[in-house]
Amino acid sequence: MNKVFTKKIKTFDNAKSGLDETIFHNANGYIGVRGTLEEGVPAEWDTMRGMYINGFYEVIPMKQAENLCNFVDKKETMLNVCDTQTIKLNVNGLDFSLLTGKTLSNERTLDMEAGITSRAVRWQSPRGDKISLNVKRMTSFEELSLFTQEYSVTAENFDGELVVSSLHLPEVYNYSDPNDPRLAADSEQFLHCITADIKDSISYTVTETAVSKLRCAVLSAHALDAKRSRVCVSKTDDNTFIYNAVIHINKGETITLTKYTIITDSLRFEDPLKTGFDKLSAVLKNGIAYYYEKQRRYLTDFWSKAMMEIQNDNEMSLAVNFNMYQLLQSATKDSFGNIAAKGLSGEGYEGHYFWDTEMFMLPFFVLTNPRLAKQILKYRYQTLDKARENARLLGHKKGALFPWRTITGVECSGYYPSGTCQYHIDGDIAYAIINYYLVTGDLDFIKDYGAEILLESARLWLDVGFFDKDRFVINMVTGPDEYTCMVNNNYYTNMVAKYNLEWAVKFIKLLDDKDLSKALRKKLKLTDEELTTMSEASHKMFLPFSEELGVIPQDDSFFDKPVWDLKKTPKSDFPLLLHYHPLHLYRYQVCKQADTVMAFLLFPECADKDIMKRSFEYYENITTHDSSLSKCAFSVVAARLGMRDKAYSYFGNSAKLDLMNLHHNTKDGIHTANMGGCYMSVVYGFAGLSITEEGCFLNPFLPDKWEGYTFKFGYMGSVLKVEVDQTNVKISLEDGDDVSVNLYGKLQKITKKTPAKAPLQ
Amino acid sequence: MNKVFTKKIKTFDNAKSGLDETIFHNANGYIGVRGTLEEGVPAEWDTMRGMYINGFYEVIPMKQAENLCNFVDKKETMLNVCDTQTIKLNVNGLDFSLLTGKTLSNERTLDMEAGITSRAVRWQSPRGDKISLNVKRMTSFEELSLFTQEYSVTAENFDGELVVSSLHLPEVYNYSDPNDPRLAADSEQFLHCITADIKDSISYTVTETAVSKLRCAVLSAHALDAKRSRVCVSKTDDNTFIYNAVIHINKGETITLTKYTIITDSLRFEDPLKTGFDKLSAVLKNGIAYYYEKQRRYLTDFWSKAMMEIQNDNEMSLAVNFNMYQLLQSATKDSFGNIAAKGLSGEGYEGHYFWDTEMFMLPFFVLTNPRLAKQILKYRYQTLDKARENARLLGHKKGALFPWRTITGVECSGYYPSGTCQYHIDGDIAYAIINYYLVTGDLDFIKDYGAEILLESARLWLDVGFFDKDRFVINMVTGPDEYTCMVNNNYYTNMVAKYNLEWAVKFIKLLDDKDLSKALRKKLKLTDEELTTMSEASHKMFLPFSEELGVIPQDDSFFDKPVWDLKKTPKSDFPLLLHYHPLHLYRYQVCKQADTVMAFLLFPECADKDIMKRSFEYYENITTHDSSLSKCAFSVVAARLGMRDKAYSYFGNSAKLDLMNLHHNTKDGIHTANMGGCYMSVVYGFAGLSITEEGCFLNPFLPDKWEGYTFKFGYMGSVLKVEVDQTNVKISLEDGDDVSVNLYGKLQKITKKTPAKAPLQ
Repeated sequence: MNKVFTKKIKTFDNAKSGLDETIFHNANGYIGVRGTLEEGVPAEWDTMRGMYINGFYEVIPMKQAENLCNFVDKKETMLNVCDTQTIKLNVNGLDFSLLTGKTLSNERTLDMEAGITSRAVRWQSPRGDKISLNVKRMTSFEELSLFTQEYSVTAENFDGELVVSSLHLPEVYNYSDPNDPRLAADSEQFLHCITADIKDSISYTVTETAVSKLRCAVLSAHALDAKRSRVCVSKTDDNTFIYNAVIHINKGETITLTKYTIITDSLRFEDPLKTGFDKLSAVLKNGIAYYYEKQRRYLTDFWSKAMMEIQNDNEMSLAVNFNMYQLLQSATKDSFGNIAAKGLSGEGYEGHYFWDTEMFMLPFFVLTNPRLAKQILKYRYQTLDKARENARLLGHKKGALFPWRTITGVECSGYYPSGTCQYHIDGDIAYAIINYYLVTGDLDFIKDYGAEILLESARLWLDVGFFDKDRFVINMVTGPDEYTCMVNNNYYTNMVAKYNLEWAVKFIKLLDDKDLSKALRKKLKLTDEELTTMSEASHKMFLPFSEELGVIPQDDSFFDKPVWDLKKTPKSDFPLLLHYHPLHLYRYQVCKQADTVMAFLLFPECADKDIMKRSFEYYENITTHDSSLSKCAFSVVAARLGMRDKAYSYFGNSAKLDLMNLHHNTKDGIHTANMGGCYMSVVYGFAGLSITEEGCFLNPFLPDKWEGYTFKFGYMGSVLKVEVDQTNVKISLEDGDDVSVNLYGKLQKITKKTPAKAPLQ
Repeated sequence: MNKVFTKKIKTFDNAKSGLDETIFHNANGYIGVRGTLEEGVPAEWDTMRGMYINGFYEVIPMKQAENLCNFVDKKETMLNVCDTQTIKLNVNGLDFSLLTGKTLSNERTLDMEAGITSRAVRWQSPRGDKISLNVKRMTSFEELSLFTQEYSVTAENFDGELVVSSLHLPEVYNYSDPNDPRLAADSEQFLHCITADIKDSISYTVTETAVSKLRCAVLSAHALDAKRSRVCVSKTDDNTFIYNAVIHINKGETITLTKYTIITDSLRFEDPLKTGFDKLSAVLKNGIAYYYEKQRRYLTDFWSKAMMEIQNDNEMSLAVNFNMYQLLQSATKDSFGNIAAKGLSGEGYEGHYFWDTEMFMLPFFVLTNPRLAKQILKYRYQTLDKARENARLLGHKKGALFPWRTITGVECSGYYPSGTCQYHIDGDIAYAIINYYLVTGDLDFIKDYGAEILLESARLWLDVGFFDKDRFVINMVTGPDEYTCMVNNNYYTNMVAKYNLEWAVKFIKLLDDKDLSKALRKKLKLTDEELTTMSEASHKMFLPFSEELGVIPQDDSFFDKPVWDLKKTPKSDFPLLLHYHPLHLYRYQVCKQADTVMAFLLFPECADKDIMKRSFEYYENITTHDSSLSKCAFSVVAARLGMRDKAYSYFGNSAKLDLMNLHHNTKDGIHTANMGGCYMSVVYGFAGLSITEEGCFLNPFLPDKWEGYTFKFGYMGSVLKVEVDQTNVKISLEDGDDVSVNLYGKLQKITKKTPAKAPLQ
């Protein structure tokens, strides 16, 4: 039951409908369809009527106000590729609309076991004709190109005529909001038809972008289940296709229109149109029931690995499941895309990929679906050459610098102080690779991809930093906290750089030991001297610390600034980034998210517990959580430091961020990173999971409000199930070889027959 | 003789012609006309064919790549207002052009006593017809709206037909170079005709901008001195006016076309067209000789006050005179404009006003023409409300922050880290006002304008900085050195802020003493507590110092960075700003200009001499002088520190920057600030002039290459003449009351009869 979310919609208005478009969107990692209403909303409403392809982009100019040397002046942007969602209904001459007549009931449902969203509406027309409308939508995990709509109308109290008009619009516009820096400023049509025709009642189009020259094929087919109907498919001069059905319906009768959309693109397919026809013909042959069944099976498998159950708290269970489901919907299933900051649910952040993927979403996939995690990490490897070029543009003679935001690997950040300057992304990617290795032991991946990335990042750290006497220092970078930019020795950055340098050397030695490093050493012209310098830099990495406060400063000069008075700041001034010039924010101790706490999340042993605790409390007082990535980090670290109530409170906020629209911008898309963070809050936080070179450690506690919780995770190829109740912790082996796990500091061997057990602490 | 610069032009090509367009431009502080050739150059040549009005602008969008809160997203830009320069000549059916036929001789002259530029060309057409062409141009100091061309042709070896076509184009384009951040990126037509007609053979137009809604009227009239001619004036469909004269000329005969252009605008005149006709009618009545005569008289007066003679070095004398003349040409003569970074000589920096005015150009005017200096300072007062608004946009609750670059007072800087973030501009303006007061004793100006500016700037310093224990610190600002941005406790900034705070209080007390402060205290709601805080902040202002090096660091963390290896940097990499991403530059100890040396220029007593010397030498090694404002500061400070050869060498570079095109970009316009800096090098540097509360001090030396030098300056209403030769220094009173001057540390009273004298040291 906590995998089905039903929302009764009592008032239907502009202010709320955008949120539901996001919450009820369908996606499968390849395509995403916003949950807009088939019949549309009034033109002046703030709707984002979009259908998206992961990794499909146009290159657009991004003019710099002053174009300094090597500034980024164009960017990639995700495209709204078509509109095949639109289905209009006319009942005895009157158009169906929730704004006319009388809505007798209206609800929307997301069924995360079926992989389907649905609408159920009972409506009475201004003339008194009552209908029930039921719509099911699916983006198929079986056939990633497939989006389906099953549109059923029942005449409750009349005999009469229905007209169903189903549209296929190939030339659509991207959404924009010139006042929000997190969205595109200009609305533009990026795709233009090069083919648009009808064959056997199937409308098909190929559209193309002007600059990236990518093509997208969209095919639309219909099957109508109605006794008495006349159907025609036509095309207007502006390449709009209209499938029109005039249906005689009797009281109590139900008619159903099934609409199939196939979307393909030239990134993945040589001839997208031909591929589209092939796929559509298979789909029509199989029929929709086949795909419903496959969808359910796919999800049964998914939930069997990604299960997380909270006993006695259905609402929180639902939120947690919702978040995991959205991660699945958002994550690419091939190597052409990645996971965008908003998944495929909306145009916020323009479909760009950030550090969010590696730091917030990957832990979930590494622990529940390592094959997919590997796929996602490979994307970075494929962009390594572009990262090398990016480093050159920034003046570095060596190494690779991954872009702050991108689709294909090219830097798309237009404001470098809180974009490109976030060098920590190199360390983040390295951290994710190391974590993947520690959880899976997959040295092949390290040999083929991971080590090269780490070595090139390590080279970058050597180039950006330098040895200042006996310390290795890194100047003029920005940590994750975007309210503090361009600083020296950002603690977070130096920590991930140190780890990156250390493991670059470690990986090479691991490969050396197995005689697997030759090709890579040759390719990179790697010298032992370089490796020695990397070790030395890691060893001597400077980590700032304030003796006076006993607190870790965010950077060299962070404590030289006055503290922002958050208590005196009016609520309407949040998020601060929308109300204060960045230069003003930079002058204060105020954090959008706390770098240092994030470093504690990544490195649980990086400092003494009392320093961590003092630091946590210090940053807690100056962090606004204006970033959706903030609270989950506070939750995990609070849990580890024994602040259980705090941990739960931060987790709760994090878990429900999108479902409850806590940041007031879920209408622009989901916050995928936070969803991964929510998962970490439970697994890293409450359950105290930590996987290091020394092994797998768990230190679970039970939040006061819960009677118990259960989740599964993979470790070295085996699948473990963790059950925590009010008295005991039990870890059982679900699949794979025996493994040893350290529970509450005690190493226990787990076999299929003997789970690890301990009384709850 | 060293006020006439003649250049023989041996090769005429694209690479060189832009430079001459700048060097031989005409301007009078109101209008400026580039020295483009009447007949034009081929379309593909890099010519900037412009006529400008000081302070006349359009508001254009300046899109930000990412539009963060309160970012500047539009800017003012100086306009090319018309083209009335164009005169084409046809000799017996063949067009005159320096690229056809044979150029027998070609020279251009700038006569700085007559205030006229001229061309003298002897040319033989492809058919063998020889002509001499002489053109004189003037922008009148008597009638600021007037630009004249006197165009004479002599038939040397033929009888035949000349066709002279003189154009008036009201709709013209601004120049652009998308690859140079110092120039506009897009070429655009900003003015559109609303009136364009002919009356009594006078072509007249009114054009208007789309956003600023400013109008500009241009009138063009011709007088032809030729025995046998047919003349007609016509207009084409695209509003181009053609004055066409067909002339029969005999061998040895000379014909002369005199062309008068009147330019007026709606900033200054309620009905610019009517005013234009009134002015033109007076001009035509007076005739050109009248204005030549007025021009010469104006300049005689100017040179009598601004004289600077170098004995035995004609070339340097010429360079120094050229620079002073350009300052005069560039400086506004009314309160609607200021002095643009490129004067009125070109479109570099889009006609914007910077700190250049107060810090580099004003000292010249304060010492030679205090009335004009006062006018220029008043401009800032008129923009004070906009500076207050600007401070609010940056998050400051109090005070005023002047814009980094502007025309009307609104911030037009699109890259704030090296733009708006240069808060020192507040201190610079304050410094200039204090300096004006110290030189003139004009307390009325302080009462009406100066004190208010200083108090509002002082309030800003209190808001941007804060008391950190017993120190007042200022974080996150950028000093003049744009290769180091957004730092804490920039020494230069803290120095000017300290002085600003100190004098804000001092001025109020001076006014209190004379019972002149009441209105101002009331207007600003000034409290004594505020004044106490200002004093305290000034007193406790933190000034960084490195005990280890004995050197003043540019800012808190400047010495934490590695030193840029200038010796290993290839010459082709300069200026660095065109070859390195700013983030890369920010990571090194490398200066575009040295802030700290600039602080020494302003505050000769700010540190012990040995600290200054060590600091000077330190910065000398890391300064690229990529800013044209750099070398003059090094010259003055070297002079004061007794490094005479160095002082001379820096001065020489500074003096000849534009005449010799040392920065390779004089084609985009002159470097007015450097011209003022060149003046300071002699007066502050070689002559050691310093005017403080304690009086007027001189410590002259004679550069080795010179036999002597002479200059005049004003002090407390009197005019003094300083003569330095190889044995003696003499300071005589040219005008005004007796004054006392401290020469080589000895106070001497100077009367008309008794000059101050001392042997040269």
